[in-house]
Amino acid sequence: MPAQEQIRTAVAGVSGYAGAELARLLLHHPRLARTTPFFLGRPDAPATTLTTLQPQLKGPIADSSADSFAVEPFSWQRIEERRIDLLFLATPHEQSREWVPEALGRGLRVIDLSGAWRLEQPANRAIYQFVDADESKAVEVQQKTVYGMPELHRAEIAKAQSVANPGCYATSIILALKPLIDADLVDVDRGIICDSKSGVSGAGKAPVAKTHFMYAADNLSAYGLFGHRHLGELLEQLKVSDAQIVFTPHLLPIPRGILSTIYVHFREVQTPPSIAKLFQDFYAASPMVRLYPTPELPQIQYSVRTNYCDIGFHLAPDGKRCILVSCLDNLLKGAAGQAVQNMNVMYGWKEEEGLL
Amino acid sequence: MPAQEQIRTAVAGVSGYAGAELARLLLHHPRLARTTPFFLGRPDAPATTLTTLQPQLKGPIADSSADSFAVEPFSWQRIEERRIDLLFLATPHEQSREWVPEALGRGLRVIDLSGAWRLEQPANRAIYQFVDADESKAVEVQQKTVYGMPELHRAEIAKAQSVANPGCYATSIILALKPLIDADLVDVDRGIICDSKSGVSGAGKAPVAKTHFMYAADNLSAYGLFGHRHLGELLEQLKVSDAQIVFTPHLLPIPRGILSTIYVHFREVQTPPSIAKLFQDFYAASPMVRLYPTPELPQIQYSVRTNYCDIGFHLAPDGKRCILVSCLDNLLKGAAGQAVQNMNVMYGWKEEEGLL
Amino acid sequence: MPAQEQIRTAVAGVSGYAGAELARLLLHHPRLARTTPFFLGRPDAPATTLTTLQPQLKGPIADSSADSFAVEPFSWQRIEERRIDLLFLATPHEQSREWVPEALGRGLRVIDLSGAWRLEQPANRAIYQFVDADESKAVEVQQKTVYGMPELHRAEIAKAQSVANPGCYATSIILALKPLIDADLVDVDRGIICDSKSGVSGAGKAPVAKTHFMYAADNLSAYGLFGHRHLGELLEQLKVSDAQIVFTPHLLPIPRGILSTIYVHFREVQTPPSIAKLFQDFYAASPMVRLYPTPELPQIQYSVRTNYCDIGFHLAPDGKRCILVSCLDNLLKGAAGQAVQNMNVMYGWKEEEGLL
Amino acid sequence: MPAQEQIRTAVAGVSGYAGAELARLLLHHPRLARTTPFFLGRPDAPATTLTTLQPQLKGPIADSSADSFAVEPFSWQRIEERRIDLLFLATPHEQSREWVPEALGRGLRVIDLSGAWRLEQPANRAIYQFVDADESKAVEVQQKTVYGMPELHRAEIAKAQSVANPGCYATSIILALKPLIDADLVDVDRGIICDSKSGVSGAGKAPVAKTHFMYAADNLSAYGLFGHRHLGELLEQLKVSDAQIVFTPHLLPIPRGILSTIYVHFREVQTPPSIAKLFQDFYAASPMVRLYPTPELPQIQYSVRTNYCDIGFHLAPDGKRCILVSCLDNLLKGAAGQAVQNMNVMYGWKEEEGLL
Repeated sequence: MPAQEQIRTAVAGVSGYAGAELARLLLHHPRLARTTPFFLGRPDAPATTLTTLQPQLKGPIADSSADSFAVEPFSWQRIEERRIDLLFLATPHEQSREWVPEALGRGLRVIDLSGAWRLEQPANRAIYQFVDADESKAVEVQQKTVYGMPELHRAEIAKAQSVANPGCYATSIILALKPLIDADLVDVDRGIICDSKSGVSGAGKAPVAKTHFMYAADNLSAYGLFGHRHLGELLEQLKVSDAQIVFTPHLLPIPRGILSTIYVHFREVQTPPSIAKLFQDFYAASPMVRLYPTPELPQIQYSVRTNYCDIGFHLAPDGKRCILVSCLDNLLKGAAGQAVQNMNVMYGWKEEEGLL
Repeated sequence: MPAQEQIRTAVAGVSGYAGAELARLLLHHPRLARTTPFFLGRPDAPATTLTTLQPQLKGPIADSSADSFAVEPFSWQRIEERRIDLLFLATPHEQSREWVPEALGRGLRVIDLSGAWRLEQPANRAIYQFVDADESKAVEVQQKTVYGMPELHRAEIAKAQSVANPGCYATSIILALKPLIDADLVDVDRGIICDSKSGVSGAGKAPVAKTHFMYAADNLSAYGLFGHRHLGELLEQLKVSDAQIVFTPHLLPIPRGILSTIYVHFREVQTPPSIAKLFQDFYAASPMVRLYPTPELPQIQYSVRTNYCDIGFHLAPDGKRCILVSCLDNLLKGAAGQAVQNMNVMYGWKEEEGLL
Repeated sequence: MPAQEQIRTAVAGVSGYAGAELARLLLHHPRLARTTPFFLGRPDAPATTLTTLQPQLKGPIADSSADSFAVEPFSWQRIEERRIDLLFLATPHEQSREWVPEALGRGLRVIDLSGAWRLEQPANRAIYQFVDADESKAVEVQQKTVYGMPELHRAEIAKAQSVANPGCYATSIILALKPLIDADLVDVDRGIICDSKSGVSGAGKAPVAKTHFMYAADNLSAYGLFGHRHLGELLEQLKVSDAQIVFTPHLLPIPRGILSTIYVHFREVQTPPSIAKLFQDFYAASPMVRLYPTPELPQIQYSVRTNYCDIGFHLAPDGKRCILVSCLDNLLKGAAGQAVQNMNVMYGWKEEEGLL
Repeated sequence: MPAQEQIRTAVAGVSGYAGAELARLLLHHPRLARTTPFFLGRPDAPATTLTTLQPQLKGPIADSSADSFAVEPFSWQRIEERRIDLLFLATPHEQSREWVPEALGRGLRVIDLSGAWRLEQPANRAIYQFVDADESKAVEVQQKTVYGMPELHRAEIAKAQSVANPGCYATSIILALKPLIDADLVDVDRGIICDSKSGVSGAGKAPVAKTHFMYAADNLSAYGLFGHRHLGELLEQLKVSDAQIVFTPHLLPIPRGILSTIYVHFREVQTPPSIAKLFQDFYAASPMVRLYPTPELPQIQYSVRTNYCDIGFHLAPDGKRCILVSCLDNLLKGAAGQAVQNMNVMYGWKEEEGLL
């Protein structure tokens, strides 16, 4: 598909963290004139402005127009009037489950940041408890939706009408494991352990007990043991069974960033150069993955506020056990940044455009 | 009043931060060893246990009885059945405004941690917008209620049936200024500036936008400019006018602790020893105030998890301008600790008992 | 001076926080696209690379050249060989005191981020205890050095060969007070109180007791009372006397950001619109100042990672007392960002270029 | 051994975090009421006081004697003069390696908080690179030294002259795994993964790059992969081989607390009650372990500032994979608190005395 010069985008759900980050990225994206309309996720919310939601986006005293980014209540009619080409949904799962089919029906391309359409297998998405008004339609939409991880599905994304943006935890784990599993290096029957830690923005903007400063600060807690909803993405993308992988998320007392520590057994003895080469080859065409040379390791502070997924690894002296450390910013590569990356792929632009 | 050997206490409002801290202090108070305090939640809340609310109070595996601190729904009948002597109210202002008269009518002594009864002047408490069912009764209760700062009102507290526990910000400021103002050293007409900073526990346990980790962390914000409700306590206890004092609170990204930086002009030139002497004399009988020798200054970390109010000061080279720095733990000396201190005074015990 | 198309820049001191931030800004500056800045460390430090010092600047797997930003030991010879036009010094005060004269003698333009050349009056810089090898030369250099706050000295900066980049605290205070003092609204004899709070990056990269996580975290401390070295900048730029202004810095448990709470008395009654108008007029041509409409106030989180200085204010009901709240990022508008802003002014480029 | 009424204690190394915490605990220990512990710093350090090192221990204005806790330079002569019974060493590993033999030779009982004497196998302590002046003496001291984990070695500790206080990470892992491994439930050949996270106090008081606030805050980093020195304690206490266990520590942006997430495979299908029963039986006589009933899990905030090791677990639906979560305060149960617990056992006092 040849690069398209100019498109019209809209973002629904700019009041959440991912939507806000996405709005900021689109405003600075070189391919998009500063005309992106913004919408609240809810049809019934009062109109507001982006700078009310995010005062840090305000302009200087002399440039009051900078304050004029209107945020309208969500409305299909207004989306049509604005002749939108690409709709980003940074809305709750249930909302996206309903709106993606509607958007496709209206001829829009869609990038959905929620978990609504990431999972092909009904069993894997049972945890979301979706109730589809039109089940056959849902099956059809699911089939045409591409899992939006450009490093794995670049070609399909380019042609896709519907893209399901991956989960933040899932991105950090899949990108670290995929090259090893695809090369059949990992003895998956010995079990893969994914111990992940995420900053509080991953828990959403709603003030609840768990996001209270007094709960999160000076603390660390594990949650969702043997039952986090990102597990399904690992199963489908890595093609492993539930018995072969364990994923445990933890809540870190920091605003943003994910670090996943991943433990695998190799079938055969490996060396640092052999593993490094595998990653270099796998991601040779991927501008948003960075490999750390052993013995260096990524840290959350190096990946936060970038769109990179940083990967490092250590081999045990026996050459058969390996620890992978993977870091990313849960709001960028784990959400809004990856969504922009998907847009770039969908329209034939440079994959990292607007993301450096 | 001779020391009373044994009393029965109850705490209403143990689900909040101050109530929880108070429960912890009372459980370890040497005078209350044989009478576990009676814990009460909201009248309409289901019964629970203290260790459910505060898992850190759990006992070891072998001692499951340690888990048995029941928290019952609030009920006057149960308070009578338990023959409570002293009722602590760690309840919202409106609730305390209603319950303190009721408690006094039932012959209980009361220490109220809310702002309901701290202010004598109607103008100063207008900000709370109390609606009293029985206004003349309210006037009567107000008149017999003592402002519970032992360093200033020790004798009245000892005899009081009703004690209004001071505000956290107010405690840090009043204790630093009172010796200087009483000695008429301060030129109050030149204005007193109180710039205070508090940890997030001061904002309460309810999850709201302001207590969200993402709002509070990595941030600092001023609020309540020229209108915080603790101002009235400063006016009444320091006997200054609204035009003579400014108080500005800020929200710090830490769990607990207050630091107030206070700026005054002296009428005459002073020296560090003259000011130090004044404080030493004023607080000679006060076990919960610590003075820092110039040029040392208190810091939040030194006062947190103690019941002390720490005070330090620096004089300008001209000897007439002075900066006071005052620190305390908003949940201890600023709330639950000061409440225990008041109980100790009310029953003739050592003022610092159970607080070191 | 007409805009110059292309210049060659060098940064000495990229291993510190301000130098690192400056390197990052210059690498992304649109005017410097074809001339990678030349990075310099200490004269006696081994050569290294920018991505070793700052792993977050690494490029993707495919682009190993992105890792090649060399950092050489400082050397005048190498600066000449690279035909540098503009030298940024992010070096310690003593070093800058020595190197700025040398750089000017070699015909370079210089922006010095240290405190070495900010103060005209010997008494105000006594605190730095500079020992100049050539005192008459130092006097001459001082006279030709412009205080690099574009909002106040735009025209002189444009022509200057030597620019002294302001202190971070000083920037937050001067920009908030200057419009009011210049308009003679402030009764300076009643005293101005500047209560400032800064994140830990302001304390430098050297690991010392004060920058240890255990000291700074969960804490707040005041320091430098009546004696911080930024005070001289306030005196000279605001034209007030030491007796008329008090400045107290505090160490906040956050990585970056400054909030200053400033208390003034007006000579006459003012209104929010009259004050707002004053600021709007004063900063009409200044793209890096944002005014918050009363009752909104800036917060550290809104200004961090921007080059703006955010200003808000509240008037007392009497219309004569005013609290100003000023926020900025100490590494951007308080250091590296303002340095780039000065460069833009010096070369006739848009003042905000590379800073949005 | 019958309980001894009164002993004289000394602490060497009160300037570090563990030593400071230990000093605080001993000062409040009911058995040591009349014998203030004797505090010692480095042999070459000037005399100081405990309240200079830890201002939070200061007493009130009225009680200046409270400030008189002298800290003398370390000296064997002074230890003899004070007729010390029990010497705590909170000193660096090398120092303890030298001083424990000396102390034993002088007839003192010793609790050493360092890693100097925890490991029986030379291979396991090779990482410390100890150089013993008298190797046969070192062998002899090692043989008589007991690993000071009362839950495992209560009887030996009671009789021991020399106790090696366990590592903080090791304590959190060993206490969680020991009951399961001893009962032979764990299929150790399938590998045990211990993913641990610790607050910054675990990294020591010396200001280094890693303990700088700017490094630790808003960050998470893994370190010591396949090579942390606590690994040896796991091997020896759990009787597993290096090939059977992986331990990965991470640095958390919090002052104190450790959380270990531990992954095991069971040989046979288990149920939550069967595992709970096992722990209850194993720790029936252990007052400092708390078990969390499934599905509850410990969190760092519940264990910090207590001497408990908190343990919880989740079983996979298959009943064969299990995740254990273990939390403790690295300065208490992970250091000073466990040292006091050992003292209590050594002198026949209640194990939890002075620790609740």
